[in-house]
Amino acid sequence: MTSHPQPETIAAIQQLYGRQSHLIDSGAAREWAETFTPDGVFDSPSYPNPVVGTEALTQFARDFAASAFAKAERHRHVITNLHIERVDARTLTVAAYLQIIATKVAGPSALLRFTTLSDTVRHTPDGWRVARRTVARDDAPLPQ
Amino acid sequence: MTSHPQPETIAAIQQLYGRQSHLIDSGAAREWAETFTPDGVFDSPSYPNPVVGTEALTQFARDFAASAFAKAERHRHVITNLHIERVDARTLTVAAYLQIIATKVAGPSALLRFTTLSDTVRHTPDGWRVARRTVARDDAPLPQ
Amino acid sequence: MTSHPQPETIAAIQQLYGRQSHLIDSGAAREWAETFTPDGVFDSPSYPNPVVGTEALTQFARDFAASAFAKAERHRHVITNLHIERVDARTLTVAAYLQIIATKVAGPSALLRFTTLSDTVRHTPDGWRVARRTVARDDAPLPQ
Repeated sequence: MTSHPQPETIAAIQQLYGRQSHLIDSGAAREWAETFTPDGVFDSPSYPNPVVGTEALTQFARDFAASAFAKAERHRHVITNLHIERVDARTLTVAAYLQIIATKVAGPSALLRFTTLSDTVRHTPDGWRVARRTVARDDAPLPQ
Repeated sequence: MTSHPQPETIAAIQQLYGRQSHLIDSGAAREWAETFTPDGVFDSPSYPNPVVGTEALTQFARDFAASAFAKAERHRHVITNLHIERVDARTLTVAAYLQIIATKVAGPSALLRFTTLSDTVRHTPDGWRVARRTVARDDAPLPQ
Repeated sequence: MTSHPQPETIAAIQQLYGRQSHLIDSGAAREWAETFTPDGVFDSPSYPNPVVGTEALTQFARDFAASAFAKAERHRHVITNLHIERVDARTLTVAAYLQIIATKVAGPSALLRFTTLSDTVRHTPDGWRVARRTVARDDAPLPQ
C-alpha cells in the first residue's frame, strides 16, 4: 500500500523534476546524469538499450544535445502531471507526462513525441535521485 | 475574499490533479470518478449534458477511453497552471489549463483542444475531492 | 552558492506563476502587471524594448489581449518546469518553460512559440513579485 508523501518531499521532487529538464536541455550533461543514482537506469523504447550509471547517462545526454544541434533545433523536455507515491521512507514512485518539443531555428515548434514516465526515486545522502526511469511512448501499439 | 491555502493543502491539490489525469488516461474509470465527490458535477461544452455522480462519471470515463481506443489513439489530459484559492476551511477554487493531446499508434501527437478548468474542490473524509468542474473551450466564440 | 528554498516558498512561487498566466490570458492587465515589482522589468526578444514598471506592464498586457482578440484567437501562457533557487532571504531565481498556445474561434489550437523564462523574484510587503523577467525564444539562432 502506497501513501502520500509529506509536503516537503513533494516540493523536493518538484524541484528535482523541474531542474532535470533544464539540465539536459541546456547541455549540462553531467549534472543531468547526477540527478540519477550512481547506478541509475534510464529505459526508453526510443533508444536501443537501457542506459545505466553516471558515465553512460552523461554520454547519453551529450548525444541528445548533439543530435538536436545537428538538426539546427532546440529540444525541450516538458514535464507535467507529477504524481508521487511513497513506497517506504527512502523510496517513492513518480508518474509524469513528458513531452519532447522541438523548435527549428527561425522556424516553428512542434510536439515530437508524448511519453509517460514511471520512475522509482530513492533518497540518498545527496537528496532524492532517480533510481530507475521507464518511458512509455504514446505512439506504441495498443494492448490487444 | 479568497486567500492562499496552506502549503500542505497546495501539495494535496497538486497530487489530486496529478493523479486524476493518469487515472482517466489509463482507463481507471471508477478511480477517476472517485476523485469527485459522490454528487460531483462535470460540466463541459464538449458533451451534451453535465455528468453528475459517481456512476455517471465512471461511465463517462469508460466512454472516453473507448472512444480513443476505437480511433487507435491515446488521449492525455495535460494539466498546467494550477491556481488554488481558499473559499472557506473546507472549500477551494482551482483554476487550471487542460490540454487534450492525442497520439495515433505509430503516428504523430497533436493538441486536440485547449480548455480552462474552473473547479470547486471540497474537503471530505477521504481528502480533497472535486465537487464541481466547469470546462471552457478556447475555440468557443469570443465575447462581443 | 544557491540553495533550495523552503516548501512554503516553493508553494508561494507556484501560486504566483499559476495565477500570473490566468491574469494576462483573461485580460486582467493591471493585476498581471502587479505580479511584478513596481519597477519590474519584462525583457523579451518578441518585443522591441524591455517593458518597465507597473504602468507600462499594464499597457503591455492590454496590447497582448487586444492583439489576440483582433485575430479572433485566444492566447494562453502555459508554464511548466518551474525550478526555484534561493539567492538570499529576499531573492530567488526562477527558471520555467513558457509556451504560447493560440486557438482560433471554431478552429484548431497551435503552439505559437516555445520560450524559457529566467526570472529574478523578490520578496515584498505584498509577497513574492517578479523583479526581472528575461525571455529566450527557442527559434533564436544557435550559439556558434
